[in-house]
Amino acid sequence: MPRKEKSKLKIIPLGGLSEIGKNITLLEYEDDILIIDCGLAFPDEDMLGVDLVIPDVSYLEANEDKIRGMVLTHGHEDHIGAIPYVLRQINPAIYGTRLTLGILKNKLSEHVLPYEPQLNCVNAGDVVKLGQFAVEFIHVNHSIADACCLAISTPQGVVVHSGDFKLDVTPIDGEMMNIARLGEIGKKGVLMLMCESTNAERAGYTPSEKTVGKSLEYIFNTNPDKRIVIATFSSNVHRVQQIIDVSARHGRRVAVTGRSMLNIVGAAVELGYMSVPDGVLIDINDIKRYKPEELTLITTGSQGEPMSALYRMAFSDHSQVMLGRGDLVVLSSSPIPGNEKLVGRIINELTKNGVSVLHDRSVEVHVSGHACQEELKLLIALLKPKYFMPVHGEYRHLYANREIALDMGIPEQNIFISDIGKVLEIGKSGAKFAGLVPAGKILVDGYGVGDVGNIVLRDRKHLSQDGIIIVVASVDTDSHLLLSGPDVVSRGFVYVREAEELMEEIRQIAADAICRSLECSHVDRIELKNAVKDDLTKFLYAKTKRKPMVLPVIMNM
Amino acid sequence: MPRKEKSKLKIIPLGGLSEIGKNITLLEYEDDILIIDCGLAFPDEDMLGVDLVIPDVSYLEANEDKIRGMVLTHGHEDHIGAIPYVLRQINPAIYGTRLTLGILKNKLSEHVLPYEPQLNCVNAGDVVKLGQFAVEFIHVNHSIADACCLAISTPQGVVVHSGDFKLDVTPIDGEMMNIARLGEIGKKGVLMLMCESTNAERAGYTPSEKTVGKSLEYIFNTNPDKRIVIATFSSNVHRVQQIIDVSARHGRRVAVTGRSMLNIVGAAVELGYMSVPDGVLIDINDIKRYKPEELTLITTGSQGEPMSALYRMAFSDHSQVMLGRGDLVVLSSSPIPGNEKLVGRIINELTKNGVSVLHDRSVEVHVSGHACQEELKLLIALLKPKYFMPVHGEYRHLYANREIALDMGIPEQNIFISDIGKVLEIGKSGAKFAGLVPAGKILVDGYGVGDVGNIVLRDRKHLSQDGIIIVVASVDTDSHLLLSGPDVVSRGFVYVREAEELMEEIRQIAADAICRSLECSHVDRIELKNAVKDDLTKFLYAKTKRKPMVLPVIMNM
Repeated sequence: MPRKEKSKLKIIPLGGLSEIGKNITLLEYEDDILIIDCGLAFPDEDMLGVDLVIPDVSYLEANEDKIRGMVLTHGHEDHIGAIPYVLRQINPAIYGTRLTLGILKNKLSEHVLPYEPQLNCVNAGDVVKLGQFAVEFIHVNHSIADACCLAISTPQGVVVHSGDFKLDVTPIDGEMMNIARLGEIGKKGVLMLMCESTNAERAGYTPSEKTVGKSLEYIFNTNPDKRIVIATFSSNVHRVQQIIDVSARHGRRVAVTGRSMLNIVGAAVELGYMSVPDGVLIDINDIKRYKPEELTLITTGSQGEPMSALYRMAFSDHSQVMLGRGDLVVLSSSPIPGNEKLVGRIINELTKNGVSVLHDRSVEVHVSGHACQEELKLLIALLKPKYFMPVHGEYRHLYANREIALDMGIPEQNIFISDIGKVLEIGKSGAKFAGLVPAGKILVDGYGVGDVGNIVLRDRKHLSQDGIIIVVASVDTDSHLLLSGPDVVSRGFVYVREAEELMEEIRQIAADAICRSLECSHVDRIELKNAVKDDLTKFLYAKTKRKPMVLPVIMNM
Repeated sequence: MPRKEKSKLKIIPLGGLSEIGKNITLLEYEDDILIIDCGLAFPDEDMLGVDLVIPDVSYLEANEDKIRGMVLTHGHEDHIGAIPYVLRQINPAIYGTRLTLGILKNKLSEHVLPYEPQLNCVNAGDVVKLGQFAVEFIHVNHSIADACCLAISTPQGVVVHSGDFKLDVTPIDGEMMNIARLGEIGKKGVLMLMCESTNAERAGYTPSEKTVGKSLEYIFNTNPDKRIVIATFSSNVHRVQQIIDVSARHGRRVAVTGRSMLNIVGAAVELGYMSVPDGVLIDINDIKRYKPEELTLITTGSQGEPMSALYRMAFSDHSQVMLGRGDLVVLSSSPIPGNEKLVGRIINELTKNGVSVLHDRSVEVHVSGHACQEELKLLIALLKPKYFMPVHGEYRHLYANREIALDMGIPEQNIFISDIGKVLEIGKSGAKFAGLVPAGKILVDGYGVGDVGNIVLRDRKHLSQDGIIIVVASVDTDSHLLLSGPDVVSRGFVYVREAEELMEEIRQIAADAICRSLECSHVDRIELKNAVKDDLTKFLYAKTKRKPMVLPVIMNM
């Protein structure tokens, strides 16, 4: 009797491909679905007024009974940030390491949820059985502590998801990425490697976090007379640890400022991810008790974010700290594409106020948390996967990662550049794309989730470019009379006080359009509105080369 | 009899300091004013809907009788782009080299001016006498041909303005920056060097334009089977020349696309700044007659500009060129800060369509046109100026240039970081800041020059973030009656069809506010409006955490 053919394994990314952020991937086998990560993305510059972007999980909602759990690789926003929103639709059991869950809890406490989230703590090395999947958490290095990649046993074979990783042979916590375990898994055979692509365009290896420590040591040695202010990502626990260590060695006290920095340092110390010598950490309100050269301040704002602690310090709007001559600011970070101008604005303002500034273009005060080409090759060499899917990145990054896999000898037909919502089916006979599931971007604006879409964004864009002109009139279409108005109000178009003549012309043209339309035997409000809109739009473009939104409001009495 | 004390020389920057672009500087001595350059800037991301930014020249308008002329260093937008606008207010004699004036004429032809501009062509080496100033044009290397720095004799001494420059010992046109002449001038004594600061943060020397030629040769050699499309700045005549040369050597025809590229290549060939072997240049409409590997296309769009030729090619919206497998696109440029995401978008789209892409992070296909630290030092060493003023750059760049001058031994008190509108007076007794003249940014939006200011921009920003809600009602305040409405219209707030309930709540709250106000004994339209605005703003923030603009229009019948 022939053995029954196994079902196919489906790999379905719902985010993170051809985009930066909102990483989420599903594995589906028969009646079991496993969710890997659930991150958010920050809005593009054309998503005006939008606060953040989360993945469309309607496929999960529709298949809620199949969900066996959600596993988290690490605690960065682009991997866990959408969970508070998605938990309003689905309520899976969530598995993550201690720091990851610590950060998630902090985040969840700011939201009101319909039910208690099911958070389950794991350690690197643990295996969690979820339906027909068995997920092994494997330690990797990254710019946040407690990060893991995942080796997932499925009935079709082992799928490895790299998460975000780098190989750091001299990490701060002493724990190198567990390449020994990955080698063992590779020996037994790996069906598929889903591999992050962030730095796939960069040659070589990413430097160790320790190199930043050396730069900091040098900076502290050469600036013994200055107060040192260091801005970095709050989630980079090891970076903060290094800053505390070097400060302690130089007899400095450390104060922390910025909400997320305070939150994460608090959580990291409490959970034992950071060790602070007694008496080193002081409250920001107590800094006046010390001389400037006895102090290190650790702050948020390394991306130039307006309203961050560093921004407020730079623009003299911070209640405890005023920066000037005698201060050294170190930006221990690299501007994320799109943030260069914001970061530049802070550097300019600090320099203007006499503050010395060091950033990653002047000294090596930052290293990436992501694998460069040689590390990506190493992972492929260890795992020798049959299939390869680049994940996490814009198309150019996915493509560069594909080229690396080709170089490593994976046959072209076994490499799949997928897209969000695209289903890859893997069975005995091979792997192939097989259809689509719903996927996309859900925009979050204030409390609104998904109520801002293309039409609203198109209007915001239009309003932002040339403003709006509102024409209000009341008419009686039965007696063909203009009863009052038209009144013309504009916002964001021209400075009205200096454009009285133009505003009067606009009023006149609107009045003409209304009266002309009212003369027709049958006239309705829509015709009236269109006449006003058309006449004004034409007139304004000819006169000003601008296209403000023209909004007639006609009241029929 | 004691010799009469000379008058003081004033140096007044009206643009280009603590900002990128809109470079313009005045020298003033007694009744003579000399204008150096008159450029535009591109709007910051918070100047919504603004097309470009020009300097406030009201000081020149008020002193028009003193203006002896305007001298131009080179033909880039940030040095000549504001001239068509400023010529509506003043009409100075303009002096520039042939290519600079060629580009300016092209630009002026798109504007209707009240009088014929007075354009006077000069060659490097010429001295132009303008009032008590004598301006010598001195050849420098830059990313545009025919660029000059200026040595200006004044009754107080020689002022050198560097313009934009680099030192290229192997330039494409064979003409190295005239450091011999600068050395002679330095020997005779220089009062003040105003020195550009663009690359003052960068160590070393800027590579020669020839290095790009070598990279191009390598690219053409290794891609004999591909159509090669190269995007670069249209004004970089030497870059375009190199592309044409390497194409000709490889037996390829060259077609040009993009309006500004066609304009400038046309002008450069006509004026003799470019030499094209017979038959190499073909019309873009004729490319179908050749095999892909016989073609090079030169295009605009190297900054990712939407609607540029490259953008249209990438997004399949170009009428003659469709890119795909078999095409190689070379971005011979570096993204200007702020444009990284736009450039990234094009790279992603091209890669997705199977096009190979090379950019400055993968091969050396671009060099800067600006002096790095060693070149800045060289200029200071040649001129040995008494006073030094860093110009052209954000504050951080000016500051870095100041540090270079300090390193070169210029005393701290002789270095002046100035600002726009700030007057530096130089006399026998020394140099010092002495007051301010009007200066600032004038925003150009469509045909409007200066009619968009802070209030309009603030409204556009507000509209862009959360949209607008308009409430219209007609009332009779005498009889305290609501006659019709309120009608509620929104744009850019929520998708109305899916928010009917919310829109009805808004209408109800507006109606309540109006009726409540109408009950008061004395009520006017302003009170009615404020009641509607306050109630709705509070309600909406509590309900949606958004703050749309609320605009009540109340008609009193």
